[in-house]
Amino acid sequence: MGDYVVGVDLGGTKILTAVADLEGNILANSRLATKAEEGQQAVIARIIESIEDVLAQTELNKKVIAGVGVGCPGPLNAEEGIVYHAPNLDWQQVPIKDILADKLALPVWIENDANAAALGEKWFGAGQEVDNLIYITVSTGIGGGIIINRQLYSGANYSAGEIGHMTINPQAAIQCNCGNLGCWETLASGTALARLGQEAVRAGRDTLIAQSTAEIEDIDGQVVTEAAAAGDQVAQELVKEVTNYLGIGIANLINILNPELIILGGGVIEAGDMIVEPIKETVSWRALEDSAAAVEILVSELKEEIGVVGAVAKALVELDILK
Amino acid sequence: MGDYVVGVDLGGTKILTAVADLEGNILANSRLATKAEEGQQAVIARIIESIEDVLAQTELNKKVIAGVGVGCPGPLNAEEGIVYHAPNLDWQQVPIKDILADKLALPVWIENDANAAALGEKWFGAGQEVDNLIYITVSTGIGGGIIINRQLYSGANYSAGEIGHMTINPQAAIQCNCGNLGCWETLASGTALARLGQEAVRAGRDTLIAQSTAEIEDIDGQVVTEAAAAGDQVAQELVKEVTNYLGIGIANLINILNPELIILGGGVIEAGDMIVEPIKETVSWRALEDSAAAVEILVSELKEEIGVVGAVAKALVELDILK
Repeated sequence: MGDYVVGVDLGGTKILTAVADLEGNILANSRLATKAEEGQQAVIARIIESIEDVLAQTELNKKVIAGVGVGCPGPLNAEEGIVYHAPNLDWQQVPIKDILADKLALPVWIENDANAAALGEKWFGAGQEVDNLIYITVSTGIGGGIIINRQLYSGANYSAGEIGHMTINPQAAIQCNCGNLGCWETLASGTALARLGQEAVRAGRDTLIAQSTAEIEDIDGQVVTEAAAAGDQVAQELVKEVTNYLGIGIANLINILNPELIILGGGVIEAGDMIVEPIKETVSWRALEDSAAAVEILVSELKEEIGVVGAVAKALVELDILK
Repeated sequence: MGDYVVGVDLGGTKILTAVADLEGNILANSRLATKAEEGQQAVIARIIESIEDVLAQTELNKKVIAGVGVGCPGPLNAEEGIVYHAPNLDWQQVPIKDILADKLALPVWIENDANAAALGEKWFGAGQEVDNLIYITVSTGIGGGIIINRQLYSGANYSAGEIGHMTINPQAAIQCNCGNLGCWETLASGTALARLGQEAVRAGRDTLIAQSTAEIEDIDGQVVTEAAAAGDQVAQELVKEVTNYLGIGIANLINILNPELIILGGGVIEAGDMIVEPIKETVSWRALEDSAAAVEILVSELKEEIGVVGAVAKALVELDILK
């Protein structure tokens, strides 16, 4: 077996790749634009290019690589290595594991990106001391990865952890991409913040959000959180609505799964205490007393790196090195 | 080690006890009223009496009993064997495991009743062929037990599976015993059906529920489901509301945990297809396509026996016979 592994974080906008030793120490990184619009072949060529890049940086021969972990958008089948459907790559039924394994002549394992992030936190992040944790990423959508008894819990067909699609408010009329009404991610994601910000501007409300240089339809969650941080009352009200929904969903997960640790990541969480403190307050009364007492809620320290660290962890788990 | 185990289902109204062989075949049963109002000592004496009863029926000597599993109301600490708080027994901080082990001079293990039921279904019921299942009981409240990778998942401090306390509708103003607003069990249990039925009668609506011989405050879920079965439109509307909420919560669990099997039990479910079919319909559009395709929703066939079968299973799991 080789003495190194490669991790690839395949995202809709960028490919982050790293080579690491068997203890997970990252020796070199690469960052390329995904350019999904150029098609599947071009994206796969750039994944290969990124791997060659980290090998060249470290002067490592491919023969010393024990395997490659790849975090992908889902839904996917981790065992067969097929991405069923990835809207942000415009992929359908792509057998990415076999394609990469053939081109690289190396073992390849794929994992849903939020699940890979949960593995990254378990083995190299905030979760190293606990057996049961939930990683939650709040960005354009809401995704999750569930670690139970130190192992990733994938469910019956690799769809466990799709926490963004729990119905939080059945009276909310916003249709989710999945077809459901009232999904958590339609109410509590960066996209929800953006929608609320755009609505406030369109309604002519007196808010700093309206002074954004962005076109109305380009107002995003960050514009809203920045306005809130600057003291804008309308933006603060919108942040309050979204963080209330975030707290409800997190309290639900705590009541159902009684985890030791919740780790929050993703762009919306990076706005800091303005987001995290109201979540904790909602959890404190909505979660059951015993379960609230048992859980710690932390913010990921791995930030943008979490995807590639998770992909490295995926490879090390498959090699039975992390267990 | 002995060749038999005892299972005890300690409920608020009755104590059901059985002796079984190591394959889980039940050889004798006992049923006693709990009479919680007579106090803790009297209830414990009746548990002992019920065990002596099943031993006498089978002419088994206590020496051949390998251990006793007890399903209890929670919250509790299964490892230390303490019931923290059981409102329907009026128990606080009762070290039931040690008390019974002393009196019986046998190993005793306790488990939350819904968790024990999940073990019963996994080993002797509908779940024998699957690795991941959720048992859901819908009666006065809503409880659950989660089996992951063939094992009971208890969480950080034995509080996992408190699914009745997920917030399903934050705009619902009904306060739960737990202090939260909008808990699933306030919207979708037998108690919810009863409350809606009582409200309909108080509002003077034209409904068969009003013809119940019960005082208004004694109208229960069964009165409502029976009126619905008899064609009463008001009752059918109330059943529709409650089954819609049941479907939402079950779809949430499916999206979060992607189980192979959901098993429904409890008094409300015994009303049959009137309850179960609308649940399945709601799940079919609210659960993600892949997760909905992977899951089967079944009604428990163990009915009232599930508690004692689960307590037997608990003992056999602790003895490492079921694994």
